[in-house]
Amino acid sequence: MLHVITTDIFDRTLLDDLCRLTTITRRIARTPDGLRFLQQLLPVRRAMLYFTQPSTRTYLSMNNACHILGVRTSEIRNPDVSSEFKGETFEDSIRTFAAYVDLIIMRTPQPGYAARAADLMGDMNRRVPVINAGSGKDQHPTQALLDIYTLERNFQKTGGIEGKTIAMMGDLKRGRTVRSLCRLLRHYKDTRLVFIAAPGFEMEPDILACLDADKVSYEQSDRLEDFLPSVDAIYVTRMQTEHDTSGESARVDLSKYSIGAAQIEHMKKEAVILHPLPRGPEIHPEIDSDPRAVYWQQERNGLWIRVALIACILEASDQIISAQSKFL
Amino acid sequence: MLHVITTDIFDRTLLDDLCRLTTITRRIARTPDGLRFLQQLLPVRRAMLYFTQPSTRTYLSMNNACHILGVRTSEIRNPDVSSEFKGETFEDSIRTFAAYVDLIIMRTPQPGYAARAADLMGDMNRRVPVINAGSGKDQHPTQALLDIYTLERNFQKTGGIEGKTIAMMGDLKRGRTVRSLCRLLRHYKDTRLVFIAAPGFEMEPDILACLDADKVSYEQSDRLEDFLPSVDAIYVTRMQTEHDTSGESARVDLSKYSIGAAQIEHMKKEAVILHPLPRGPEIHPEIDSDPRAVYWQQERNGLWIRVALIACILEASDQIISAQSKFL
Amino acid sequence: MLHVITTDIFDRTLLDDLCRLTTITRRIARTPDGLRFLQQLLPVRRAMLYFTQPSTRTYLSMNNACHILGVRTSEIRNPDVSSEFKGETFEDSIRTFAAYVDLIIMRTPQPGYAARAADLMGDMNRRVPVINAGSGKDQHPTQALLDIYTLERNFQKTGGIEGKTIAMMGDLKRGRTVRSLCRLLRHYKDTRLVFIAAPGFEMEPDILACLDADKVSYEQSDRLEDFLPSVDAIYVTRMQTEHDTSGESARVDLSKYSIGAAQIEHMKKEAVILHPLPRGPEIHPEIDSDPRAVYWQQERNGLWIRVALIACILEASDQIISAQSKFL
Repeated sequence: MLHVITTDIFDRTLLDDLCRLTTITRRIARTPDGLRFLQQLLPVRRAMLYFTQPSTRTYLSMNNACHILGVRTSEIRNPDVSSEFKGETFEDSIRTFAAYVDLIIMRTPQPGYAARAADLMGDMNRRVPVINAGSGKDQHPTQALLDIYTLERNFQKTGGIEGKTIAMMGDLKRGRTVRSLCRLLRHYKDTRLVFIAAPGFEMEPDILACLDADKVSYEQSDRLEDFLPSVDAIYVTRMQTEHDTSGESARVDLSKYSIGAAQIEHMKKEAVILHPLPRGPEIHPEIDSDPRAVYWQQERNGLWIRVALIACILEASDQIISAQSKFL
Repeated sequence: MLHVITTDIFDRTLLDDLCRLTTITRRIARTPDGLRFLQQLLPVRRAMLYFTQPSTRTYLSMNNACHILGVRTSEIRNPDVSSEFKGETFEDSIRTFAAYVDLIIMRTPQPGYAARAADLMGDMNRRVPVINAGSGKDQHPTQALLDIYTLERNFQKTGGIEGKTIAMMGDLKRGRTVRSLCRLLRHYKDTRLVFIAAPGFEMEPDILACLDADKVSYEQSDRLEDFLPSVDAIYVTRMQTEHDTSGESARVDLSKYSIGAAQIEHMKKEAVILHPLPRGPEIHPEIDSDPRAVYWQQERNGLWIRVALIACILEASDQIISAQSKFL
Repeated sequence: MLHVITTDIFDRTLLDDLCRLTTITRRIARTPDGLRFLQQLLPVRRAMLYFTQPSTRTYLSMNNACHILGVRTSEIRNPDVSSEFKGETFEDSIRTFAAYVDLIIMRTPQPGYAARAADLMGDMNRRVPVINAGSGKDQHPTQALLDIYTLERNFQKTGGIEGKTIAMMGDLKRGRTVRSLCRLLRHYKDTRLVFIAAPGFEMEPDILACLDADKVSYEQSDRLEDFLPSVDAIYVTRMQTEHDTSGESARVDLSKYSIGAAQIEHMKKEAVILHPLPRGPEIHPEIDSDPRAVYWQQERNGLWIRVALIACILEASDQIISAQSKFL
């Protein structure tokens, strides 16, 4: 694995390997000696966090994932940074970053930029890996990975993701997290998807076609209550109001697409509720302490799967796997 | 000690312990081996500097204090950061930080936020310590600690802070440093305080009541010249013009509340002049090289007492104390 | 060497030593063990990058140079930072930085500030070295060093810089890189300089006088084509449009002062093309893969000569020289 630009590079084997590596890594991290071991893995590597689309959450997660492995970080987090490079092409900027660091983690408001950066490396002596930390509306692959890992972990005792009923609710049309998650869930046999959205916010046809092609079973509905008792997981998302063209989000009766105490009582005991965060009113804080609310756990999973991913890319995963007997 | 939100948690024993630890730490730091020892104490810990109220001075002091102990840092220093978390509650943001780091150091323009963050940890699995690096007008406890340490160090040969006459001058009404310092000075017997302020800028009644309750003796005056010969220390502060409602600061004749060559000659040989910095015209640079001007030393004390404080909170203080025989 | 403010401190011996140290350092850095050795040199040192004139390129280069040596960094990269220090003199700000770190790397839009900072250290107990990373139009010494190193490396097999014909082209009047490079090239015997510029953008008389004083031979022309076949190196620069007073840059026919496929075919096989980057249209990307185009290599040289320079200033160069037998 050199670059992580889209979810397409992840097949089932790679997903399983990555989830396993993540779990090993966090177990090693439970002791101070284990944490020191991790930090001695990549102390001479340097990463650049190039975030022209600000995202404190993803930035912190990536930066701390680097720090756990000892990787030093430099950052550009200023949305005005383009003006600093005024007159310089994107390609020249990326070449410059590649001159200084060993890993580029990038997030841009425009689609396709991470892919362009990765393509560029093919022509260079120093091929620096690129991780896409969100590029416009198209992809956010590390978010999809942490979602898979969270499902996998929570279904560990019940046979894993295969065969489970997983609902997605909210702004399915414009939320890139649910779109990427669907692409990854194709690799798990017999999962049944349920898309719950207000009219106008349904999952896009391209994703449905992709599920059809792989014979993934799904249903679409605007009635949460019908599915509450049967879902094993529900992935709730916020309205992507920043993409509104005429205030369409405000016209949705969000109470029908929200989870609070009234809804959770209809859910299975061992079901789980995920959310990519930040949340809006679609998840009421009153359920935060319910064990089924795993979105804070999910956030922390994001830290650890990024540690595992960076370890893979910078070729430290074998050392982690070999060391597990020493620390576990 | 988990959180440091106000000065209230510091009693005399804790203050003495912390001052002693600070002095041990900086002695260890005098040799390269000692510095390496310190940096090996907490290399696997990660801190977050969440500064929505920019303060380069406090930021640098905290960041470098972390670095001395090997703690890795992530930062938010953008006053516009609130917009990044638009639609997310402060509580959700703090939970997010707590998912990624082991220590939150925060500075906000609003009062009470550090306390809210600390309270929140009570409900969480991962209880991350919070250090208040300034929250609105209410508290700035680490500044008060470095002030105490500076007094303590300078009075080392003359029996410590107890029994000394300590003047505070300037904008006593609105300066949070003098307010916090008064609270800590209550723990030292027989200190005599002198508050020198222009009319309208006197120390607030709540602090006076607090001193009365503890039978701390104090005087109030607007005549610096009357006290110059008798004070052991004078803590000078700038006008907090940012809190002016009608340009009231500009109406003060600052020359009456300033120290320059003309004033310092009336002071005792072993008296000391402190200032939290940045300074305005209230301290003339012509006295900078006078040994009684200890404000630059005070700034550096701030670095070291923060090192000691972070070592305490992250449980490395015992290792420092045990190591002193090796390095001193 | 304490401070690096101008190119004046570099005589030929120092330049040769620094180039040699740079080459040794990057050879050591070729192996993981070598990289670890470098990073263990200065782990307890702390640097501050004070960039009130933003420059992502120079910032990244300096920050990563610090990281290679294990130096921890704090940064101010906000052009509005001056407002944070409102009411504080530049001298007080520098004293504050000096209280917290061991090295100040600074870049300012105004000339003379790095020199003022360095002068200030003379009066202080803690004399913190200052590296000028660009101060207004006057100097950018580390850029000149990396340019010398790039020439030196490329002329290694042909006897070094001495005796070579080196052209400089573009906005010679206002480009500080060519001005600084001229000052350093005086230390190399029998070099012949060619200044190619549009009318109104010629090299300034002060530099010409300085070359005359040292009997450095030079020619001035506005005809690139006359010199293409004879130059050993051409240093191309962009129009400094940010210094335009009446859009004068736009009136230049840039095609006459640019290098693309048509021009490069007239150059010697072993000639080299340098550019300080970012580039404008004066260098066509079509020549990027030609081995004579060394500007990306030059950028990476900048990283390594800064590593060597910081190692010198913080007194780790002897350790690097002693270690070379172990790693090479």
